[in-house]
Amino acid sequence: MTISKKPIGISLLGCGTVGGGVIRLLRSNATRLAARVGAPLVIRKVLVRDLVKDRVPECERGWLTVNPDDVLGDATTDVVVEVMGGELPAYDYIRRAIDGGKGVVTANKMLLAARAHELVRHAALRGIDLAFEASVGGGIPIIRVLRQALASDSVESLYGIVNGTSNYILTRMCEDGLGFAQALAEAQAKGYAETDPTLDIDGHDAAHKMSVLAMLAFGVKVDHGNIPTEGIRSLEPIDLRFADRFDLVIKHLAIGKDHGSRIELRVHPALVSKRSVLANVSGVLNASYLEGRALGPCLISGRGAGDMPTAVSVVADIVDVARSKLAGAAGLSTSGISLEERPLVPLGEIETRYYLRFSGQDRPGVLARIAGTLGEHGVSIEQMIQDGRSAAPSEPVPIVMITHRAREAGVAAAIKAISAFDSVSDQTRVLRIEEV
Amino acid sequence: MTISKKPIGISLLGCGTVGGGVIRLLRSNATRLAARVGAPLVIRKVLVRDLVKDRVPECERGWLTVNPDDVLGDATTDVVVEVMGGELPAYDYIRRAIDGGKGVVTANKMLLAARAHELVRHAALRGIDLAFEASVGGGIPIIRVLRQALASDSVESLYGIVNGTSNYILTRMCEDGLGFAQALAEAQAKGYAETDPTLDIDGHDAAHKMSVLAMLAFGVKVDHGNIPTEGIRSLEPIDLRFADRFDLVIKHLAIGKDHGSRIELRVHPALVSKRSVLANVSGVLNASYLEGRALGPCLISGRGAGDMPTAVSVVADIVDVARSKLAGAAGLSTSGISLEERPLVPLGEIETRYYLRFSGQDRPGVLARIAGTLGEHGVSIEQMIQDGRSAAPSEPVPIVMITHRAREAGVAAAIKAISAFDSVSDQTRVLRIEEV
Repeated sequence: MTISKKPIGISLLGCGTVGGGVIRLLRSNATRLAARVGAPLVIRKVLVRDLVKDRVPECERGWLTVNPDDVLGDATTDVVVEVMGGELPAYDYIRRAIDGGKGVVTANKMLLAARAHELVRHAALRGIDLAFEASVGGGIPIIRVLRQALASDSVESLYGIVNGTSNYILTRMCEDGLGFAQALAEAQAKGYAETDPTLDIDGHDAAHKMSVLAMLAFGVKVDHGNIPTEGIRSLEPIDLRFADRFDLVIKHLAIGKDHGSRIELRVHPALVSKRSVLANVSGVLNASYLEGRALGPCLISGRGAGDMPTAVSVVADIVDVARSKLAGAAGLSTSGISLEERPLVPLGEIETRYYLRFSGQDRPGVLARIAGTLGEHGVSIEQMIQDGRSAAPSEPVPIVMITHRAREAGVAAAIKAISAFDSVSDQTRVLRIEEV
Repeated sequence: MTISKKPIGISLLGCGTVGGGVIRLLRSNATRLAARVGAPLVIRKVLVRDLVKDRVPECERGWLTVNPDDVLGDATTDVVVEVMGGELPAYDYIRRAIDGGKGVVTANKMLLAARAHELVRHAALRGIDLAFEASVGGGIPIIRVLRQALASDSVESLYGIVNGTSNYILTRMCEDGLGFAQALAEAQAKGYAETDPTLDIDGHDAAHKMSVLAMLAFGVKVDHGNIPTEGIRSLEPIDLRFADRFDLVIKHLAIGKDHGSRIELRVHPALVSKRSVLANVSGVLNASYLEGRALGPCLISGRGAGDMPTAVSVVADIVDVARSKLAGAAGLSTSGISLEERPLVPLGEIETRYYLRFSGQDRPGVLARIAGTLGEHGVSIEQMIQDGRSAAPSEPVPIVMITHRAREAGVAAAIKAISAFDSVSDQTRVLRIEEV
């Protein structure tokens, strides 16, 4: 195989830290990349807002333009790389790039979360490759691994640790006993959490990524707003300490399971065994754990954010899109994505094990009533902790139970009934326990 | 993109359990695979030794032949899939397939370990894709992840748990306190270890895989016989119990580090923190952990063996080779592999932390002499355990030390000097501690 003389033209929309990293990698690995693609990759245009601002030294002034038409109308540009972020005008620019027959690589998770289906459908119709590895899991090739598995396999279930901010906070709470507010403040001080951390800590960012992962793993079109989503804001150290005694740790998980005609998707904090491969995915690391029907289990973990890891993913996508382009086989990766509609399994119908912490009076018979009520709702107890005695008989004590697998509706009904007891407070803490 | 009418012809050399799995996956996913490749994949010939033996129901009798010429000389075969195993005649058949211009997919780790360099060089010269994802790590896309990382990054270090048999035995020893012989017998009873387990438990299989991984990760040509290799046969439960008290677990690791002009490669049991992402890779699971200079850390883990996981990897390779073939871009993946010669770092020059267990007399001054001798050789102690007193003063007691980072030659010289003491036995146990 000789390397084609005709280069593949690459243009960037945006030149922030990820864009700068992409330019740096493209230039410093030019020979290697040309050998891999079969043609040199040449940068044509870089859309910026400010022509005089300092850029990475590898970025040539002559590429810069403030006019999107210079990029989208450039006949020598084969692949457009969108690293500007935000929903608009990124969406419009990508549509125009697709309409102009250019391959597209994007790292824009916000855009994908909101409009992945539209963009994928549009690109597939036009026979265009739309690659977005960097939009989920930063540098970790989650999409690549899903694609390999899905060439000839199907995904039974998927568990993702996809929000680095939440994972950092939970790691500090679990390992160092910090309270939520303290761990959040620390994450903010270190730049791991935004000033307004809502998107991350309330689980919305994870739900966004879940909708993209569900599209790839299960071929379903799902609105992230419909995914049952809980964040980590209300977690208390006391529960993490009890969990520790059961050899459990807490993780914020994005969970997807294929039930054939229906699909189970949910995003929430959950307890997992310390022996789980997900237990040691700590700090800002992300992970994706999938069970393939033929492949079996497969875990992939690494940095879910950061300029250079993200740039590595973007460049890997550029290589793929450029190769397909050169081979006259563009559009295959996009047309392979299915966008079926399948109903979600309601939360009440899911089945898992549960951690329950009741606050009950330390009086004879309270425990028996709780256990009896759980039993009436089909929930049986696997393990229990009730420590010592309370200081005063009127003071409630924590009663912690781990259940066997049970249906969520049964657990919810039992807790509602138990909360009506005089001897139990209505502040029962429920955490799902996942076998992963 | 419309799907080409002209199909891609696939022929198999061998139809054992992996081959049967490949046929099953190719047929049951025919539509999906055609969409992904851009042309239908059609099975042409299957080389077997026995025409009447039962095959998977998806295998058509008309494909079967006992004559390799029927496969290698078949003009309608575009991709040859070698799943027969063994070094010969597999090597000759693959050479013939390459010479005949056919793409090649192989799952044959024994062949690759012995002759990967020859085959890669030959395929690269002829512009042929030679894909071998399934030869390392079964179903885990280790090679795919390395390739993504290496499109624009370089690997700083690599830690692999690549032998499922050893990992199973160590997991049972660590978690359940079994002795080596007992754990091995159990692994054999479960079919996880061969009747002659030498290749696995003495580390040779891991060294084979390390040579293939080093070729991909560092672009070096290395003979597996030159990689310093230790197995797990002599490990004793007492050390795993002490390690547990330091929050360490034992893993059999294949380690590679890029030192620029030289390369550090070694295969041996090592202690890692219970907090390490590798700590929970247990039982027969495999894993590969790499540190990319731009990407940062990336772990991938899953089933390192088994018919269906391996078949999934083989089919993913078939898709890649078929796509390149169809695009007229064959040979890129193979020509991208560099085969430099770089000297190995001698074991005496490596630096890591060490676990040392001395058997010493329980007498005043012994500890001080050990510590003093270590210090003279530049080895300083980070933590120590000496339990209770011995039953009789003449009875030796275990003295366990964890060192700070030290040079292996210094540790070896200190131990040699200490072994000469009357008060210390010459059976000092040394285990390396890896920060991963």
